[in-house]
Amino acid sequence: MEHVTVNFYREDEIEAPILIEGLPGVGHVGKLVADHLIDELEGELIAEIYSLHFPPQVIVGDHGVTKLVCNEIYRCEKDGKAILFLVGDFQSTSAEGHYILTESYLDIAEDLGVRRIYALGGYGVGHLVENPRVLSAVNMEHLRPEVEAAGGSFENAGMGGVIVGASGLLLGLGEVRGIEGICLMGETSGYIVDPRSADSLLAVLSSLLGIEVDHTFLQERAEDMEQAIAAIQEAEEARGREELNYIG
Amino acid sequence: MEHVTVNFYREDEIEAPILIEGLPGVGHVGKLVADHLIDELEGELIAEIYSLHFPPQVIVGDHGVTKLVCNEIYRCEKDGKAILFLVGDFQSTSAEGHYILTESYLDIAEDLGVRRIYALGGYGVGHLVENPRVLSAVNMEHLRPEVEAAGGSFENAGMGGVIVGASGLLLGLGEVRGIEGICLMGETSGYIVDPRSADSLLAVLSSLLGIEVDHTFLQERAEDMEQAIAAIQEAEEARGREELNYIG
Amino acid sequence: MEHVTVNFYREDEIEAPILIEGLPGVGHVGKLVADHLIDELEGELIAEIYSLHFPPQVIVGDHGVTKLVCNEIYRCEKDGKAILFLVGDFQSTSAEGHYILTESYLDIAEDLGVRRIYALGGYGVGHLVENPRVLSAVNMEHLRPEVEAAGGSFENAGMGGVIVGASGLLLGLGEVRGIEGICLMGETSGYIVDPRSADSLLAVLSSLLGIEVDHTFLQERAEDMEQAIAAIQEAEEARGREELNYIG
Amino acid sequence: MEHVTVNFYREDEIEAPILIEGLPGVGHVGKLVADHLIDELEGELIAEIYSLHFPPQVIVGDHGVTKLVCNEIYRCEKDGKAILFLVGDFQSTSAEGHYILTESYLDIAEDLGVRRIYALGGYGVGHLVENPRVLSAVNMEHLRPEVEAAGGSFENAGMGGVIVGASGLLLGLGEVRGIEGICLMGETSGYIVDPRSADSLLAVLSSLLGIEVDHTFLQERAEDMEQAIAAIQEAEEARGREELNYIG
Repeated sequence: MEHVTVNFYREDEIEAPILIEGLPGVGHVGKLVADHLIDELEGELIAEIYSLHFPPQVIVGDHGVTKLVCNEIYRCEKDGKAILFLVGDFQSTSAEGHYILTESYLDIAEDLGVRRIYALGGYGVGHLVENPRVLSAVNMEHLRPEVEAAGGSFENAGMGGVIVGASGLLLGLGEVRGIEGICLMGETSGYIVDPRSADSLLAVLSSLLGIEVDHTFLQERAEDMEQAIAAIQEAEEARGREELNYIG
Repeated sequence: MEHVTVNFYREDEIEAPILIEGLPGVGHVGKLVADHLIDELEGELIAEIYSLHFPPQVIVGDHGVTKLVCNEIYRCEKDGKAILFLVGDFQSTSAEGHYILTESYLDIAEDLGVRRIYALGGYGVGHLVENPRVLSAVNMEHLRPEVEAAGGSFENAGMGGVIVGASGLLLGLGEVRGIEGICLMGETSGYIVDPRSADSLLAVLSSLLGIEVDHTFLQERAEDMEQAIAAIQEAEEARGREELNYIG
Repeated sequence: MEHVTVNFYREDEIEAPILIEGLPGVGHVGKLVADHLIDELEGELIAEIYSLHFPPQVIVGDHGVTKLVCNEIYRCEKDGKAILFLVGDFQSTSAEGHYILTESYLDIAEDLGVRRIYALGGYGVGHLVENPRVLSAVNMEHLRPEVEAAGGSFENAGMGGVIVGASGLLLGLGEVRGIEGICLMGETSGYIVDPRSADSLLAVLSSLLGIEVDHTFLQERAEDMEQAIAAIQEAEEARGREELNYIG
Repeated sequence: MEHVTVNFYREDEIEAPILIEGLPGVGHVGKLVADHLIDELEGELIAEIYSLHFPPQVIVGDHGVTKLVCNEIYRCEKDGKAILFLVGDFQSTSAEGHYILTESYLDIAEDLGVRRIYALGGYGVGHLVENPRVLSAVNMEHLRPEVEAAGGSFENAGMGGVIVGASGLLLGLGEVRGIEGICLMGETSGYIVDPRSADSLLAVLSSLLGIEVDHTFLQERAEDMEQAIAAIQEAEEARGREELNYIG
């Protein structure tokens, strides 16, 4: 069995200069943004990626029909700009598998003419963040001014941080192939799926892409989430007061 | 050393359109059904499968004679229908091994003309079940009505469930090869070897296969098990009453 | 790098019909017997086996000179009988490695004309044993009477036991190649290095080999060990009495 | 993907008879010495080593620019003597990977004409050491007098110790290729990064190399560290006295 198998649904006119990666990670921030963009830009599924480095399982879908675990490549066009997306529910089950899978992702990217990759993710800080920054890293120094102009922050630079998994390796192994890589990480608590952080990230990303995207859906999800959290906090405070009365 | 080695005891007239998988899993439900069918239909051992993805050990048999761990292929004929069985005591020791072993199982299936696979297992619910349902999944949507007509339930669909290991991958990787796959999972507590759940599963499976099978053995085992559980519960209640008396 | 590398110190006249395996295991029983035999029969080191499936380390020897971890093949001749030994300090670090290493051991055995393998080990029972039995298993049924005549017991047969690691796989994978395999396991507590169990095992093994071996060294080590254990037990009983006096 | 990839920045006139390994380990002693020597001798980066046996991540550098994890080869010349260094932040993530990476290190060493390797490390003793010894091991017995003359100690010999990872395997696998290997291990507590131990190690190493190196930087770091530890100890004693007063 091959380590990685790629099935294309369409072979012609699928080139694009940009690839956006939004695989699962902290706060599902990258995944939220990528899935939102695919919805808004009406992306088309062009390929599926299977691998023995994914978990050995199938997912039971809505009609009881199984689907082998895989990641997917979508393609969108907006204002004459073509963009590819790498999305899905899985990263590698092993350390070596991360390298092997990322090399496959880059093989696909090179074949389709990709010259720049945006790797999206979350940056866990351990507490709720009201105005999440979009912390950034680049794999070539000349990319930094462009990211800063779009609102990306480099305040995390020089703190010895690492970027693990597909996002990190797309920048690291991409650089070897001469592909530009920009990693955008929305600040997030790390405890919840975080649409507010995703909304901030989307603002920076759409500025970098030079396209306008409707934020309504992410903003509504963020407000729903914030109301739910406020309700929980209120209930806890109420219980706290009761306990004080009881003691008193 | 090869990853997987298959030794055939017989090479001619071993084709069959159906393969039933009953490897170990929750409540040993699938294994109970497959072993019962092989007994009732007087199956013949036609192949053994060895692999470095199985545990590195031999089993000491009844006469002190060792046997290298392996899975087995049996073949039965009933009412002019030929059926293969994949049974044994082991699944892979690693995530990657599940993929490699399942591809080997499918190679054998394809070589022997298999067009449909039944993957049998248990569906753990964490409490005793009086009338266990047979929850189901299929790898092609057109198979669903047939399964429902035979008494299989799809009430688990759309809940984000996964099927792990050989059962799941036989459906997922089988689909890629155009082999129909039906997974039948008997509801079971997950705490005991469960012949009652196996009995329910056998009813659905024999209807799908269009063959009649004697259930006596499984039903007797189920009754024995239920009497044993009832005795334990009675003893516990008696002890509970005593403790109440003592406190009183 | 090769998975396994074998370096021969001598190439000619090294054939032998018998291989005795005494790698580390429960109570170091097999290792004690094999090392004792190599000493008594003045074995000659003929090969070293290196592998990336052994732990990644060197051992610092008596003069501060390092030695890469390896297993060793010794050869002895006694009364015109030639015997090979597989000994050392290591088994595989992974499940797959056990298979790969054992296939290499069997390649060497086949190349050197081995027709029978004795796999030596301990059988842990969790308590001190005064007269340890030598529990046995064979990979071909016709070997059983010979083992019983030499004093080996098969009382462990039919209890669903397994033999793990090199000892088990030498029997299991050896059978595939038509090499006879006999596993001898001295009963032992599992808590201590057990020369008494090794002494019992040696009696059965030397009867099977048809050679006489001096037991003095193993018996002295056994007596030393038993005196040490008796002293500890006496001290514990004395402390027990004191505590009783104190309470009284 | 290759297991290991080596990128050379320079191809000509890079040969050297000596390689010094200072990868991360106990007390970072080896790394401190190697990095100090590269600084003092103004080493030139000549190659980077990438591998799927390293952790799957990139490091975010000072300007927010990512760097794929790798180890590095530096080259220095001093008094007409050429020396190579193997340094970096990573060892293998798996047992097998240690073997595969070390074979690659040795391939590079052989290509560049290396005839002797110094593997530097720490020797953890679990308590602070005022005058750390430099414990030693060699892969060929004839090397021992030279190491002793330079101040290396062999008091650890014959205690059944092991040297794990790249340092150990460079000696073990190097011996197979006929490359001399000397392992120098500065005694250290194991709790702190230990420049005092590194300073002792540097004295022995520079004597072996026959070159003079300025120790100032390491000695200053050692004094800073010792003052910090003394301050902590004083604070703890003060708190101890207070607690006694409180009890009294």
